[in-house]
Amino acid sequence: MIKKIKGSFEQFAIASHLIRWTILAIPLSLTVGTLVALFLWLLDKATRLRWQQEWLLWLLPLAGAGIYWLYKKLGRNSEAGNNLIMDEIHQPGGGVPARMAPLVLLTTVITHLFGGSAGREGTAVQIGGSMAHLLGRWIKLTEKDLRILLMMGIAAGFGAVFGTPLTGAVFALEVLAIGTIRYDALVPCLIAAVFADTVCSAWGIHHTHYAIHFTDGKATPFIPFLQMDLWLLSKVVLAGVAFGMASYLFANSMHLIKHYAQRFIRPAWLIPVAGGVVIIVFSWALGTRDYLGLGVYSKEPGGVSIVNAFQAGGAHTWSWLWKLLFTAITLAMGFKGGEVTPLFFIGATLGNTLAILLGAPVDLFAGLGFIAVFAGATNTPIACTLMGVELFGTSHVLYFAVACFTAYYFSGNSGIYKAQRLAVPKRVEQD
Amino acid sequence: MIKKIKGSFEQFAIASHLIRWTILAIPLSLTVGTLVALFLWLLDKATRLRWQQEWLLWLLPLAGAGIYWLYKKLGRNSEAGNNLIMDEIHQPGGGVPARMAPLVLLTTVITHLFGGSAGREGTAVQIGGSMAHLLGRWIKLTEKDLRILLMMGIAAGFGAVFGTPLTGAVFALEVLAIGTIRYDALVPCLIAAVFADTVCSAWGIHHTHYAIHFTDGKATPFIPFLQMDLWLLSKVVLAGVAFGMASYLFANSMHLIKHYAQRFIRPAWLIPVAGGVVIIVFSWALGTRDYLGLGVYSKEPGGVSIVNAFQAGGAHTWSWLWKLLFTAITLAMGFKGGEVTPLFFIGATLGNTLAILLGAPVDLFAGLGFIAVFAGATNTPIACTLMGVELFGTSHVLYFAVACFTAYYFSGNSGIYKAQRLAVPKRVEQD
Repeated sequence: MIKKIKGSFEQFAIASHLIRWTILAIPLSLTVGTLVALFLWLLDKATRLRWQQEWLLWLLPLAGAGIYWLYKKLGRNSEAGNNLIMDEIHQPGGGVPARMAPLVLLTTVITHLFGGSAGREGTAVQIGGSMAHLLGRWIKLTEKDLRILLMMGIAAGFGAVFGTPLTGAVFALEVLAIGTIRYDALVPCLIAAVFADTVCSAWGIHHTHYAIHFTDGKATPFIPFLQMDLWLLSKVVLAGVAFGMASYLFANSMHLIKHYAQRFIRPAWLIPVAGGVVIIVFSWALGTRDYLGLGVYSKEPGGVSIVNAFQAGGAHTWSWLWKLLFTAITLAMGFKGGEVTPLFFIGATLGNTLAILLGAPVDLFAGLGFIAVFAGATNTPIACTLMGVELFGTSHVLYFAVACFTAYYFSGNSGIYKAQRLAVPKRVEQD
Repeated sequence: MIKKIKGSFEQFAIASHLIRWTILAIPLSLTVGTLVALFLWLLDKATRLRWQQEWLLWLLPLAGAGIYWLYKKLGRNSEAGNNLIMDEIHQPGGGVPARMAPLVLLTTVITHLFGGSAGREGTAVQIGGSMAHLLGRWIKLTEKDLRILLMMGIAAGFGAVFGTPLTGAVFALEVLAIGTIRYDALVPCLIAAVFADTVCSAWGIHHTHYAIHFTDGKATPFIPFLQMDLWLLSKVVLAGVAFGMASYLFANSMHLIKHYAQRFIRPAWLIPVAGGVVIIVFSWALGTRDYLGLGVYSKEPGGVSIVNAFQAGGAHTWSWLWKLLFTAITLAMGFKGGEVTPLFFIGATLGNTLAILLGAPVDLFAGLGFIAVFAGATNTPIACTLMGVELFGTSHVLYFAVACFTAYYFSGNSGIYKAQRLAVPKRVEQD
């Protein structure tokens, strides 16, 4: 009986704990949701302006030098970006500067305006993390509570920027360590992500809709009593392996380009300038600008883009590899932005190519690549499976999981975030 | 370059690792899928027979004594059930006897035939675990590999019995410890669950379809620019708290009844006999048999059942409490079967009651209760969110997550499985 009364006190403690975090989530989400809305609006303007004024691309090397200069003068330690926030969660102490938010917002828009190939989630996560740190310092949170608020900031940024709050919350918990999710701040993260997404939508931001029209026959050809298309499933596994290898290639290209650029290009401000020149040369050589910028839409309706990759003919055989190179060069040589939207592009176009090779439904495989390459590169298979559900609906949730988990295994024991810890190795024998 | 070559060897190692587990999954899934199909078929026959021959209920005390005798004579350590399998995964050594599978299959069917209130997932998990252990011993797996095979057995049993393979795989990883998922065996578990579900369906087993027809207006009343119904969301949070408390009540009732029965009822064979008598008396006093057996359907079309709880009027105000008591008495006093289907019943009927109290859509809240009470009692919020997606579709995935995560928090730091470890406490301050 005494245990029971003590037990019900525990429930009160949990309730007051959650109410406290809900209240803290309000100012955080208002700020992060609003800044992300501003960011997405600016990004849209920048992309349209770049489409109209094609000469802007010629200024990309100069823009790179400008970004270098901005971070040199004003950045302090905020150059480390997402890794800085993750390090601060693992081991509080260094702090996340508030200037990170405006700096990364501005430099990402510059990157996109002049034609760098980059994403947006890194920017949103950094806005979320630095605003969370600022709020936490103002109200003098303890280190432990600040950790939770930082995770909420990641969840809020990610949830708002893609309109997928559940994915944002799970991503914030899953990204910290490879091979495990800890439920430290499950509900606070979900609250922050839902609020931030609501705020961002209230500003009139609309997210792109993707649709997978393919419906599953629910039977294996020639073996009608197997109510599961094992033939399609094995194609999904094969594709998952390829998606994982693409993640691996992307993460390693980033690391290699960064390493060699720092080694061979001096002084340091020449690195982004050289990166800008390479992007211009590649664009000219390929005769297309489809691999610049976000890539969600293309300037011409028939170009290569994420949206078009969901239809046959919407991508070329090697589109994925080009986008991989453009993005690795852009981000590893000093431009700003996230990795995730390019990963969506790489995945969707690779899925398009694989679907034709394997004789599989194009829209399904584009969707699988979309989430699976991201899952492999960031080591977040569960968040990405949920993202599949939030973006494409439920009918193919099993294929989403198979593709994401397989890609996760085959992307190797590293990823794009060097601050990610290895909690459980992917092969058990390695213990 | 050398690193890269080494890296690609790693991918080969991962591939051969997965191929090996895929091959091992085949005999496991064939056995487990077939036994689960047999079990579900027998369960259906037993339920129909009980509906026709109402006098069978009078023999429930005798059936209890029979079950006691069977386990006494033949059971060895298999009485510990699910906990034994989880202990074996945490700390290999004791072994899981092969006899567990036929024993639990037989005694669960007996429990249902004579009117005990119980579920089926415990039985399926025990079939999966004991067959996995048998297979592992035959082919002389190492302790580490046996651990993985046992998790695959849980995934196969759970995936096949509810027709939800993804949930089965995530459940097998999530149930082992509170507050964390380790990805030790993510893909092997998924393979085993998909195969076992396919085998079970190939035997002609059909799973019940549940439907949530409610569609969200996607706007908050009076604040039209908020594109998220925050009003409905707060009702979901309130309901989640209630679902968590129901999980807490269920787990504690089980523990208390077991404790006091063992203390005050001697000799031990009298415990199930007394349990049977109490069930008979309760049924007679309430004038209904709707709380006996599985409860997915009721004998009369208008009775209280899981399926009917998805419509207004399909449950009474206290249906959830009665089912909770019937099940706690049945399982804590020596009958066999799972806890999960009764938890679905408790959740769906509580959701039905709460929907009317809060002025919320009945089908949505019945669905939320269905998954959330289970999430709270077993501490598996992510598996249960995915179960919502696998069973009810995707439109409400955010509400599924909110309800499951909230219930998870409010169910306290214990659950129905005493072998579950506490990895991360639910309130961070407790560290």
